[in-house]
Amino acid sequence: MIIHVAHDAKEKEINELVKNIEGAGFGVNRSDGKNRTVIGLIGDTSVVTENDFAKYRIVEGVHRIQAPYKKANRQFHEDDSVIDIDGVKVGAENFMVCAGPCSVEHEDDMVALGKKLKAAGANTFRGGAFKPRTSPYAFQGLGLEGLRILNVVKEETGLPIVSELMSTDYIDDFVEMVDVIQIGARNMQNFDLLKAVGQTNKPVLLKRGMSATMKEWLMSAEYVMAGGNDNVIFCERGIRTFETATRNTLDIQAVPVIQKESHLPIIVDPSHAAGVRHLIPSMAKAAVMSGANGLQIEVHEDPQNAWSDGQQCLTPDEFGELMQTINMLLDIEKKTATGKQIVQQ
Amino acid sequence: MIIHVAHDAKEKEINELVKNIEGAGFGVNRSDGKNRTVIGLIGDTSVVTENDFAKYRIVEGVHRIQAPYKKANRQFHEDDSVIDIDGVKVGAENFMVCAGPCSVEHEDDMVALGKKLKAAGANTFRGGAFKPRTSPYAFQGLGLEGLRILNVVKEETGLPIVSELMSTDYIDDFVEMVDVIQIGARNMQNFDLLKAVGQTNKPVLLKRGMSATMKEWLMSAEYVMAGGNDNVIFCERGIRTFETATRNTLDIQAVPVIQKESHLPIIVDPSHAAGVRHLIPSMAKAAVMSGANGLQIEVHEDPQNAWSDGQQCLTPDEFGELMQTINMLLDIEKKTATGKQIVQQ
Amino acid sequence: MIIHVAHDAKEKEINELVKNIEGAGFGVNRSDGKNRTVIGLIGDTSVVTENDFAKYRIVEGVHRIQAPYKKANRQFHEDDSVIDIDGVKVGAENFMVCAGPCSVEHEDDMVALGKKLKAAGANTFRGGAFKPRTSPYAFQGLGLEGLRILNVVKEETGLPIVSELMSTDYIDDFVEMVDVIQIGARNMQNFDLLKAVGQTNKPVLLKRGMSATMKEWLMSAEYVMAGGNDNVIFCERGIRTFETATRNTLDIQAVPVIQKESHLPIIVDPSHAAGVRHLIPSMAKAAVMSGANGLQIEVHEDPQNAWSDGQQCLTPDEFGELMQTINMLLDIEKKTATGKQIVQQ
Amino acid sequence: MIIHVAHDAKEKEINELVKNIEGAGFGVNRSDGKNRTVIGLIGDTSVVTENDFAKYRIVEGVHRIQAPYKKANRQFHEDDSVIDIDGVKVGAENFMVCAGPCSVEHEDDMVALGKKLKAAGANTFRGGAFKPRTSPYAFQGLGLEGLRILNVVKEETGLPIVSELMSTDYIDDFVEMVDVIQIGARNMQNFDLLKAVGQTNKPVLLKRGMSATMKEWLMSAEYVMAGGNDNVIFCERGIRTFETATRNTLDIQAVPVIQKESHLPIIVDPSHAAGVRHLIPSMAKAAVMSGANGLQIEVHEDPQNAWSDGQQCLTPDEFGELMQTINMLLDIEKKTATGKQIVQQ
Repeated sequence: MIIHVAHDAKEKEINELVKNIEGAGFGVNRSDGKNRTVIGLIGDTSVVTENDFAKYRIVEGVHRIQAPYKKANRQFHEDDSVIDIDGVKVGAENFMVCAGPCSVEHEDDMVALGKKLKAAGANTFRGGAFKPRTSPYAFQGLGLEGLRILNVVKEETGLPIVSELMSTDYIDDFVEMVDVIQIGARNMQNFDLLKAVGQTNKPVLLKRGMSATMKEWLMSAEYVMAGGNDNVIFCERGIRTFETATRNTLDIQAVPVIQKESHLPIIVDPSHAAGVRHLIPSMAKAAVMSGANGLQIEVHEDPQNAWSDGQQCLTPDEFGELMQTINMLLDIEKKTATGKQIVQQ
Repeated sequence: MIIHVAHDAKEKEINELVKNIEGAGFGVNRSDGKNRTVIGLIGDTSVVTENDFAKYRIVEGVHRIQAPYKKANRQFHEDDSVIDIDGVKVGAENFMVCAGPCSVEHEDDMVALGKKLKAAGANTFRGGAFKPRTSPYAFQGLGLEGLRILNVVKEETGLPIVSELMSTDYIDDFVEMVDVIQIGARNMQNFDLLKAVGQTNKPVLLKRGMSATMKEWLMSAEYVMAGGNDNVIFCERGIRTFETATRNTLDIQAVPVIQKESHLPIIVDPSHAAGVRHLIPSMAKAAVMSGANGLQIEVHEDPQNAWSDGQQCLTPDEFGELMQTINMLLDIEKKTATGKQIVQQ
Repeated sequence: MIIHVAHDAKEKEINELVKNIEGAGFGVNRSDGKNRTVIGLIGDTSVVTENDFAKYRIVEGVHRIQAPYKKANRQFHEDDSVIDIDGVKVGAENFMVCAGPCSVEHEDDMVALGKKLKAAGANTFRGGAFKPRTSPYAFQGLGLEGLRILNVVKEETGLPIVSELMSTDYIDDFVEMVDVIQIGARNMQNFDLLKAVGQTNKPVLLKRGMSATMKEWLMSAEYVMAGGNDNVIFCERGIRTFETATRNTLDIQAVPVIQKESHLPIIVDPSHAAGVRHLIPSMAKAAVMSGANGLQIEVHEDPQNAWSDGQQCLTPDEFGELMQTINMLLDIEKKTATGKQIVQQ
Repeated sequence: MIIHVAHDAKEKEINELVKNIEGAGFGVNRSDGKNRTVIGLIGDTSVVTENDFAKYRIVEGVHRIQAPYKKANRQFHEDDSVIDIDGVKVGAENFMVCAGPCSVEHEDDMVALGKKLKAAGANTFRGGAFKPRTSPYAFQGLGLEGLRILNVVKEETGLPIVSELMSTDYIDDFVEMVDVIQIGARNMQNFDLLKAVGQTNKPVLLKRGMSATMKEWLMSAEYVMAGGNDNVIFCERGIRTFETATRNTLDIQAVPVIQKESHLPIIVDPSHAAGVRHLIPSMAKAAVMSGANGLQIEVHEDPQNAWSDGQQCLTPDEFGELMQTINMLLDIEKKTATGKQIVQQ
């Protein structure tokens, strides 16, 4: 951590600051330039924040060099982490293909869809039981009944289940009934929720907040891991920018950046980034070649009659066609999207 | 609501769409231009979302004309709302001056600070008991002990208390122990939390999410109001942009825009927008002249030793000096920052 | 074009507005809803702007349905345009591979580099002779001497030349000495420069402005085409967002969006988007699978000694290795990166 | 300037880097921490760029401490600069009130408007003769005839003239016929244009680019000043963000930030930031209290019939009413908006 001292700081003030830094257990490297003094902290700065020093009157700026995340940091864990989702592996050469509708709907339709998706190459099934909706007047999801239906889909297809948790009130139900707890973009910095899932051992799919920097995203993973749960999977789903031609801007560079910074896997959700179906196939293919460890794609048998977000759903046929190209790309990338059953055989 | 139909849509598909719109209870105004057809919905469209129609294959775009918020909408409530905070009024000509430290600290210091702030013109006291911190390793607030200390400050000064609620787990404690429940920027779309405070009758200070559009912000107020709690106060605290010279970009235009769209009051928090103390006086004065209904400012007796965010705190003296100019501006604006006791006399 | 009328508009004012719209040659579709009136314009609205109507006191909003660009619009030109760069084709199944240093340097080094790039699969050569530098104290390029050196590279390798024009003062030199005139991101809305290149028949590589919407970008192409030059190639090079982990955010969704809106080709420049070399191979591969019509990549024999932007240069070896995978992906995409000589045989 | 060295850098590579830094004339402060090495440069780093060092393979990051602008930097010029616009002063306690239409229109109307604006308190007159329009099909301004009309306004009212220059082709005409050369937002990084106005001695009104950081903006001023022209006035006119409720987001914090960094004056243009007239009075008043050195406001006798941007124009009466409050605020701020004639008496 580097501290810039104001050019009009008095020697007495600088000494007081240096003393406090040393008192906090750090070594100090002081450099007096022509116009200003710079103080470098030596030691493990992941436990202090920039503001711990920015609050001094004579401090003009604080610049962090060591990353504030430790458990998520590749520097201290060189190999790729591989997360086990009830038998389906994600990370390194193991590719996650998570597909399903935006909202859980009728049981029969969900089971039929699950079978088609599995046949086309999905190895996990997604569906929203609790839905974060911008409007209080919009459909809010089937709730616990939705979780029950997702379990039927799992029984019938073997596909592990991914669903979003919005409140600590339902954490026990999720631990019992889903295989991956999804934390939505709007809750990426709901720290109480992060702490709660950190107390479980369920894999957590951590979506990036709409305006979260990658550093903040890594810190949210650190919240989960600080509680003892190392099973975090990042999911890039588009960020908010000035561009309005698409719902969000898919930040595809996040894939290699996160992989450089962290050992945890990262998947891409082109459906929420694009918000319209015609962009999804090209973006899914681009995501594979960006090096992503998986995809999450919304699929619905009849998008025009989906209960929510039909405008961004592929049909099962479109998904199947896309998977053919995806598999060619996975060969080039030396990855495979292996399902649970195949692993168990 | 206006629907653009794709230029290659077949008459049969358009008819099916029109039939479905009519089936949902809307009138239809169809206009066939040279290159494309446009369909207008007639009726109360606040209960439908753009995506209810965007999901049709032949729909290229949906454009909303009627706002999706009703209770927060000035169109249906022309007069300014005035919120009563245990005797202190906010809205119309009543100006809120909320001051206090970032985090609640030692009881004696808090009481001493509260007395100084009241003397300088504050009419409410802020302090964080539960702190949303980016790092799991940073100080997380005193918790319930912090609420207890805030109550001592109220007893000693008469200043109503504003504090942030981060989880539904503590809602009963907040209803009992604070006068305004603050919803932080990171929780502006924590819909379960919004629903929970909507079930209370406490005034809610709704901070704008870091990347929330004004429309989304208004919809979050609608969530609270849909539960029956009309006592919502907006708080602009800066948005995230490309600019890094300041922590956030204070969107001061939000003040007149929100006031045009809604009857609810809006206050400005220059401390969090700026992130550094030297900008706070000028931004507080600008906020008054933008027409804001109040201010929230962080003040600490000794910023260098504040437990959090000292870099953006004014001292009580600086705050007192600022309030002298603020009062001159309030005269021009024909507003007053009246405290509880004066109202009761 | 749809006009929302304020709810308090008087019938007389609405009639005046309608009369003016009709006077401008448009048909009018008026729809009176419960709360407000909406007026639809019927006719070719590409010649009017939203502000032509927004200026009326009673107009609350104007929403455009027909795109304001005509020559760049795929609606009026269904087939992909193919641009001819002195024998190298770009567009449809023809893939552009443009490589070279940020700045033109010593002649011998440039020729040697050009030969390596051609051998590795590049079909055009880039190099900056006039450099837009943020600082007036930084190296500003070799100027006309740079163009001369680029011509030597062309003579020795046969690779057509791409270079950036910053001022109308040098337009004759560029017409004479380069094969593609590049318009840089900072000049995307330098309308005088766009008009000037519109008067030539040289292919124009139009980089996206750092904060340009896709609609504005399409309008800048329209400026060039309005002058009579249809040879425009878009180049996505990253946009400015809140994220600071990368220099810019590569908006890869722009590729399929632009291709849906326009018949013109679009290529991707991962070097400027990323700003650091380790992201370039994965982003180049992702770009191919997004459907892009080409790539522009900075390559330098010795990045540590490049005269500018060495931090984002690949070495010729890294470029060659990348091209091997790119060629596998082009097979999947049914595209080819064909050079000039092969076409001529 | 601080350089972070990669943790896997070899001692030999570090030594080579240190040698090159020393070779460039800088002193070196090397600090070896637990996990990584940091190198500080001692000396005047305004002449080097971050990329001069980022290009080294072993460099992970470069962090600038000394600002890259020198002539614009308050550190080397403590007192506020006061710019003289043909007798009207701007800077320190001198406040600029620049008003007029978006585009220059008929001579008689312009003269009549100029007289009203002067009577209401304007001390400079603005009008666009060359207009940067997003669409090639929109009105592009009267050109040189517009400059001629502006001169008639000056003759009749004594108000100095502000008008936008878009191309170096007309620089001689502008030097002859206007008092302030305005550089528009889209040309803020048109470096050839900046260099050209830097060769004149005319005051330059430098609008902030739509996505320009304050640092880039300061560097554009540096471009002008590097040519020898110190008469630069900044103009904040809104930046591009995700928010679409207003045309741009007025970054009012830019006022005190720029004033801390630079000795040059900064004015605010609320018309272009807002894009709609109802926001302009509150934003103009807020700008005064933010500490701005002036305002630029669009005014038109009959906004519904303005040739461009009527939706963001005040009427002369609205402007006059606003000026009454502005003058009360200037009293509080101890500033005055003095016109040319008064100064001369």
